[in-house]
Amino acid sequence: MSGDRPGEDDLVRLIRELVRRRAPGLLTGVGDDCAVLETRGGASLLATTDLLVEDVHFRRRWAEPADIGAKALAVNVSDIAAMGGTPRWALVGLGCPEGTGSDEIEAFYEGALTVADAYGVVIVGGDTSTASGWVVSVTLLGDAARPVLRSTARPGDVIAVTGTLGQAAAGLAILERETAPHGIEAARLDEVTTAHLRPRPRVDEGRWLAGAGGVTAMMDLSDGLATDLGRLIAESGVGARVDVERLPVAAATRIVADALDVDSMDWATGGGEDYELLVVCEPTALERLHDGLAKATGTTLSAVGEITGGSGTRWLDGRGRAVAVAPGFEHFRG
Amino acid sequence: MSGDRPGEDDLVRLIRELVRRRAPGLLTGVGDDCAVLETRGGASLLATTDLLVEDVHFRRRWAEPADIGAKALAVNVSDIAAMGGTPRWALVGLGCPEGTGSDEIEAFYEGALTVADAYGVVIVGGDTSTASGWVVSVTLLGDAARPVLRSTARPGDVIAVTGTLGQAAAGLAILERETAPHGIEAARLDEVTTAHLRPRPRVDEGRWLAGAGGVTAMMDLSDGLATDLGRLIAESGVGARVDVERLPVAAATRIVADALDVDSMDWATGGGEDYELLVVCEPTALERLHDGLAKATGTTLSAVGEITGGSGTRWLDGRGRAVAVAPGFEHFRG
Repeated sequence: MSGDRPGEDDLVRLIRELVRRRAPGLLTGVGDDCAVLETRGGASLLATTDLLVEDVHFRRRWAEPADIGAKALAVNVSDIAAMGGTPRWALVGLGCPEGTGSDEIEAFYEGALTVADAYGVVIVGGDTSTASGWVVSVTLLGDAARPVLRSTARPGDVIAVTGTLGQAAAGLAILERETAPHGIEAARLDEVTTAHLRPRPRVDEGRWLAGAGGVTAMMDLSDGLATDLGRLIAESGVGARVDVERLPVAAATRIVADALDVDSMDWATGGGEDYELLVVCEPTALERLHDGLAKATGTTLSAVGEITGGSGTRWLDGRGRAVAVAPGFEHFRG
Repeated sequence: MSGDRPGEDDLVRLIRELVRRRAPGLLTGVGDDCAVLETRGGASLLATTDLLVEDVHFRRRWAEPADIGAKALAVNVSDIAAMGGTPRWALVGLGCPEGTGSDEIEAFYEGALTVADAYGVVIVGGDTSTASGWVVSVTLLGDAARPVLRSTARPGDVIAVTGTLGQAAAGLAILERETAPHGIEAARLDEVTTAHLRPRPRVDEGRWLAGAGGVTAMMDLSDGLATDLGRLIAESGVGARVDVERLPVAAATRIVADALDVDSMDWATGGGEDYELLVVCEPTALERLHDGLAKATGTTLSAVGEITGGSGTRWLDGRGRAVAVAPGFEHFRG
């Protein structure tokens, strides 16, 4: 972001300060993946909202209406997953240019419903408007028996991630090009572009981890490890050390990075929209969680570092030397 | 709307059809003011969302950021009011152009919080993005002991409205002009422009009416009486008769209409954004509801017609002759 306009984290601080003045009793709201609300019946309700804007979060050149609908649902489902919750109800707002065909609008909702169906979500409401470009707002509500927050990491805990990192950034790099790079198999290209267009939020993984015991904090990786880990440790009032050589990077991501002359580690640390889980756990729980998660869901949990005292993240190479990591990007603008 | 792009009601039908295929057990969702959800604790939760887009729902030329924030909250609060509910939690998404100052963004949230405070709403989450113009999405959650639907009107019931009609349309007509018309007191102009910029949703009224007994159906008037009554009777499978001379129109609205050479009745039937309640009640309950509502809230309830068999609305003048009513507008586009 540029000029006087504050960045997303500044805005979160601003909004939280404004809200805190009025609602001192609200413990988890602005700043975590979801707000945790106590409903009249005494149940915990999770609520999260995301706004997706054409040419900020996607381009119509490479995102079909069905992709936009699917992703808008998925990124919200991921926020529920990040707290170990079960997504239940969605409200979907859609703005699109006058003259947009009903076939495109129907395709958008079909895309959204494909993801909703896959995760047991019912779309219960919405709103539509004309707009100069496509803009989508999704609010998702869910349940959680014991929501896992991002503010409860403790020094000595292990930092781990599900799946692999940087794949969505590799996909975005391919989508943004006019032509595909030479010498990469189509299946590899599909793998990374699909990771970007159709992320698969880790609901089963989040729920299993929240219920397994030993997980002390969790969030989803939407803006890249550097940015999101920075948020988690700031919320928890701790520091972090990450061993960059332990970051899990898929073969397809490495191949695309090599072809585009990019360091895949930059995508693994700074690339957004992987929608993997950033998991903080007790050191003694790591092996049990790793094995149990693999058995329950087939998903790998990789330890990548440790929560420390102090503040900020130290990034270390294989020899324990500090390495510079690019600040996380905030989508592709400007 | 033009070309192949469906209107809002077409979209509601489309979305409902898509959703119904998947969630046959969901009784009240897309199509009413709010979705009614059963939470795990057994309580009824109301959920509604609205998308407000620059140059569709407001213009920056005459709407300050605080106005935009206030109205975005208010129109959602009105949806909760329309079911007799109590608004509780809001999630606010904001997109605005790169370079927007933090003072403007803070003013937006201050405007939203002013309305939130006034109605006991806590803003618990949100999202921000750059966008080509201002775009706001608000999702509001609330409670209702006995939500009043729009689909339960019966032939013989009385049709009534709270407050007055057409005032927001008068305000919009003034705001859209380059210069104010001559010969109207500033206080009158303020009255109608404030009605447009800062609508006051009828939460106390809706809750009182829902609890008083005798109200058979209710909704809020966001798109004008002609459009919204059309929706209510379509959902209820009934027809309606409206006596246009009984429509309550404020003095300021008449004065502005005269000055602009507009028939104020066109604003009363076709003008949107009044955010009054459209109330359908048993004929025997009318007098009790009228007197009780005035005593409890100071707000007038005016009978304007009757639910009939058949379908569609017949508009009659003081001599019982059919009059033509312009179709409701869908905001100011094109």
